[in-house]
Amino acid sequence: MTLTAPRTIDWDAIASELAGIEVIRDAAQVAKLSKDYYTYSPILRPLLDDKVADLVVRSVSEAEVLQVAQVCVRHRIPLTVRGAGTGNYGQCVPLEGGVILDLTQMQAVKWVKPGLACVEPGAKLVNIDKQTRELGWEIRMAPSTYRTATIGGFIGGGSGGIGSVTYGQLRDRGNLHAVRVVTMEDTPRIIELRGDEVQKVNHAYGTNGIITELEIPLAPAYPWAELIIAFDDFMTAARFGQALSDSDGITKKLVTVFAHPVPTYFAALRNSIPDGKHCAFVMVAEPSLEPFADLVKEFGGAVCYQKSAQEAGKGTLLMEFTWNHTTLHARSVDPTLTYLQTLFPADKHLTLVEHMYHHFGDEVMMHLEFLRTGGTAVPAALQLVRYSTPERLREIIQYHEEQGAFIANPHTYILEDGGRKTIDPVQLAFKEEIDPYGLLNPGKMRAWLERGSI
Amino acid sequence: MTLTAPRTIDWDAIASELAGIEVIRDAAQVAKLSKDYYTYSPILRPLLDDKVADLVVRSVSEAEVLQVAQVCVRHRIPLTVRGAGTGNYGQCVPLEGGVILDLTQMQAVKWVKPGLACVEPGAKLVNIDKQTRELGWEIRMAPSTYRTATIGGFIGGGSGGIGSVTYGQLRDRGNLHAVRVVTMEDTPRIIELRGDEVQKVNHAYGTNGIITELEIPLAPAYPWAELIIAFDDFMTAARFGQALSDSDGITKKLVTVFAHPVPTYFAALRNSIPDGKHCAFVMVAEPSLEPFADLVKEFGGAVCYQKSAQEAGKGTLLMEFTWNHTTLHARSVDPTLTYLQTLFPADKHLTLVEHMYHHFGDEVMMHLEFLRTGGTAVPAALQLVRYSTPERLREIIQYHEEQGAFIANPHTYILEDGGRKTIDPVQLAFKEEIDPYGLLNPGKMRAWLERGSI
Ligand SMILES: Cc1cc2nc3c(=O)[nH]c(=O)nc-3n(C[C@H](O)[C@H](O)[C@H](O)COP(=O)(O)OP(=O)(O)OC[C@H]3O[C@@H](n4cnc5c(N)ncnc54)[C@H](O)[C@@H]3O)c2cc1C
Ligand SMILES: Cc1cc2nc3c(=O)[nH]c(=O)nc-3n(C[C@H](O)[C@H](O)[C@H](O)COP(=O)(O)OP(=O)(O)OC[C@H]3O[C@@H](n4cnc5c(N)ncnc54)[C@H](O)[C@@H]3O)c2cc1C
Repeated sequence: MTLTAPRTIDWDAIASELAGIEVIRDAAQVAKLSKDYYTYSPILRPLLDDKVADLVVRSVSEAEVLQVAQVCVRHRIPLTVRGAGTGNYGQCVPLEGGVILDLTQMQAVKWVKPGLACVEPGAKLVNIDKQTRELGWEIRMAPSTYRTATIGGFIGGGSGGIGSVTYGQLRDRGNLHAVRVVTMEDTPRIIELRGDEVQKVNHAYGTNGIITELEIPLAPAYPWAELIIAFDDFMTAARFGQALSDSDGITKKLVTVFAHPVPTYFAALRNSIPDGKHCAFVMVAEPSLEPFADLVKEFGGAVCYQKSAQEAGKGTLLMEFTWNHTTLHARSVDPTLTYLQTLFPADKHLTLVEHMYHHFGDEVMMHLEFLRTGGTAVPAALQLVRYSTPERLREIIQYHEEQGAFIANPHTYILEDGGRKTIDPVQLAFKEEIDPYGLLNPGKMRAWLERGSI
Repeated sequence: MTLTAPRTIDWDAIASELAGIEVIRDAAQVAKLSKDYYTYSPILRPLLDDKVADLVVRSVSEAEVLQVAQVCVRHRIPLTVRGAGTGNYGQCVPLEGGVILDLTQMQAVKWVKPGLACVEPGAKLVNIDKQTRELGWEIRMAPSTYRTATIGGFIGGGSGGIGSVTYGQLRDRGNLHAVRVVTMEDTPRIIELRGDEVQKVNHAYGTNGIITELEIPLAPAYPWAELIIAFDDFMTAARFGQALSDSDGITKKLVTVFAHPVPTYFAALRNSIPDGKHCAFVMVAEPSLEPFADLVKEFGGAVCYQKSAQEAGKGTLLMEFTWNHTTLHARSVDPTLTYLQTLFPADKHLTLVEHMYHHFGDEVMMHLEFLRTGGTAVPAALQLVRYSTPERLREIIQYHEEQGAFIANPHTYILEDGGRKTIDPVQLAFKEEIDPYGLLNPGKMRAWLERGSI
């Protein structure tokens, strides 16, 4: 149902219409910039491996973005926005070819005020922090790809991460204040969306406009100590994670829990983690370390790794073993592994976590990430899965869903089939308005694909 | 079972043993310094009205406190510590006379580091903030008596307040790091308690040692805007309060909800609050005001009062209508009113709140204060009660308890009969060690009174 590029586009003519803007046509480069980290999914690999853009445009300003949008609309060329390309579900893989619009050169931090910053979409998260920390602030949450990912890509394709145990997820009201967006109408416009209106483009995989500026809330920057706590049994580690997440008097930023043998995949930490232990990986504000030690004692944990905030700045960050970096490390040891994304129901007893841990044993290795949702800390999970067949993977997912766990399926590139589940009529209406030809990242939004039949 | 002062003490001799320390013997002054705000309770008034100390000592240093302790132990004189005397349950009323030790002159803020401060017990909360704010920090929580109360009294007799919607209550791990305490042994000592050990003296009504120094955690100091939101019906206001408390992306410090007619007791706000409305009184960080406005809209509320953080500094603070200040204002209009202290169970539907609201109607007027407990925001309540008889008050309390609400009874001066309910064996053992003659605030700790029979 989409009106996309006729296959006889004269790309030389397009390139010259884009004069003044950086255009990349080298096949190897274009192929590289057509990929992301969908490779974690054995389901997505065969579906996406051959998808490639026709050319890549790298714009440095909103004016240039507007010009690119105009050219693409005029010629009905699909346009897929790209940040650092670290998404996990092929979010920025151009299903129908066309133009990749790379925004990594739009990196300005335009202003920082107490609690708020205004940034360009290509700014790397780590670089935003470098500037805001000078004033005592930092971004509220970041993916574990903190050092490579862009803020535009995080908003476009991410969900939450380190910091979510305090501030919830990106979709929660207050975690994104405003965006400027370039539309794909006959004459592309720049519009500003503020407050709840940002949900029209938040986590839309770039199907609902090209974000050219973002106003984001900041958190007070604490000196974050990094610690690993070892436990003899998994459920004690998990309950410790819940208790820490629920400790209103202890300031923390990361609460990750790994069942054995997950920590054995972390080569760099081999000497730090005693054999056979289940672990919590945490970031705790230094002023809270003393009460934190009491909590560790209460649960019989043993601190086996500790870096002060100052030391933590040097070398690998502890967060780079958590969230989806866990999968990265595990797959570098055993590339047959894949993963799941699960939200367990709020339950201080962690009954369902315990059940799944025992039910699947070694086939689905537990990796919990605690985060707040609606004011309550719950365990999300990015379990490592020993992959066998697509049917078995579906079975595992189905079993989770039947038992009451929510699966944000990472084995689909369709927006609604991942985390969202239902079609968002507001996002659809907005797309009909600002992208009438369906040129933005075509093939990703089910609502749009099926809109004839609704 | 207590070994307290023989009634034939030579107070002139005592006064001269205290040479060099300020001693107050003027009867009117001593009477005044023997009182607190137990007057809110028609049950406590007859029990406490005639209780008065023999003399008041006002020490300026830990060394002086040690000297006073030594004199009291030597002569077996009851010693009751006093901060600003704003407690609500006669916590610092000397049941057996003796010495009142007034610590209001020990006001030093000894040091401030990012996230932590070390203070003397007589420091007023407002004055601590004045010094820590210069570095960007503030105390995590304060009672509405913020401008008069001392930190020692807050720890000794308070529970939580403005800030508890984020940080929980004083008893929660991490909200008090360390204390120095003067004991009442034959030779009084100074001991330091750190971490979980502080629970031995936290909220002990001064029965477990004289706190002479405290290490307290700090919160990042935001510019707090003050707002009043009006609603047509109470349950919408209450649900708004729950939703705001659960909004992880909105930074807030106070979430109070009043059913009509409670706001009509606030003479100073008469022109701000439309007739017949139910209200939320909130403090929201200025950078969060934009998403906050969306939440207000979602619930159909109307902002009827708003002060920026800068304006809020001038004149009456909005917090001075909340927590137990509500009772103060209501009683200044109708002195027959009294109040309850309730903790409702965690329940996003607020079913029990709704039931009580309808069940008691005008007799028990709803006043909710949202606070975090164990990671979950729940409504506490300081309902205004139209007092008739002690029996009826007991009936009301009993009905709440039967329905599953927890009552921290403000109509008793006994530690365990208020909020705690059960005897704390750790506090009792500690008291046996450091106050073997039971001289500290005698008559307040049930565990001690009944220890023969346990
Ligand atoms: C090892 C690893 C760990 C990860 N950990 C996390 C994690 O902890 N939490 C998490 O949420 N994600 C995680 N991810 C996924 C991903 O890294 C993050 O979501 C990251 O923020 C994406 O940023 P990016 O710049 O790479 O975006 P891209 O991958 O370039 O883009 C992501 C999506 O956003 C769209 N987009 C990009 N820029 C714009 C724009 N300006 N306007 C509109 N749309 C835009 C793209 O079209 C695409 O659909 C992880 C991935 C890997 C490989
Ligand atoms: C209008 C009003 C509103 C209030 N609002 C709140 C509220 O929001 N939250 C709340 O928790 N309380 C509230 N209170 C109760 C009270 O104001 C607070 O708990 C306050 O912090 C007490 O401080 P203070 O200095 O007045 O203590 P005091 O009343 O002097 O003492 C309280 C108790 O602590 C003991 N104590 C004092 N200093 C020491 C010390 N150095 N060592 C050991 N023990 C000591 C005393 O013996 C006494 O038992 C309110 C009271 C009123 C009248």
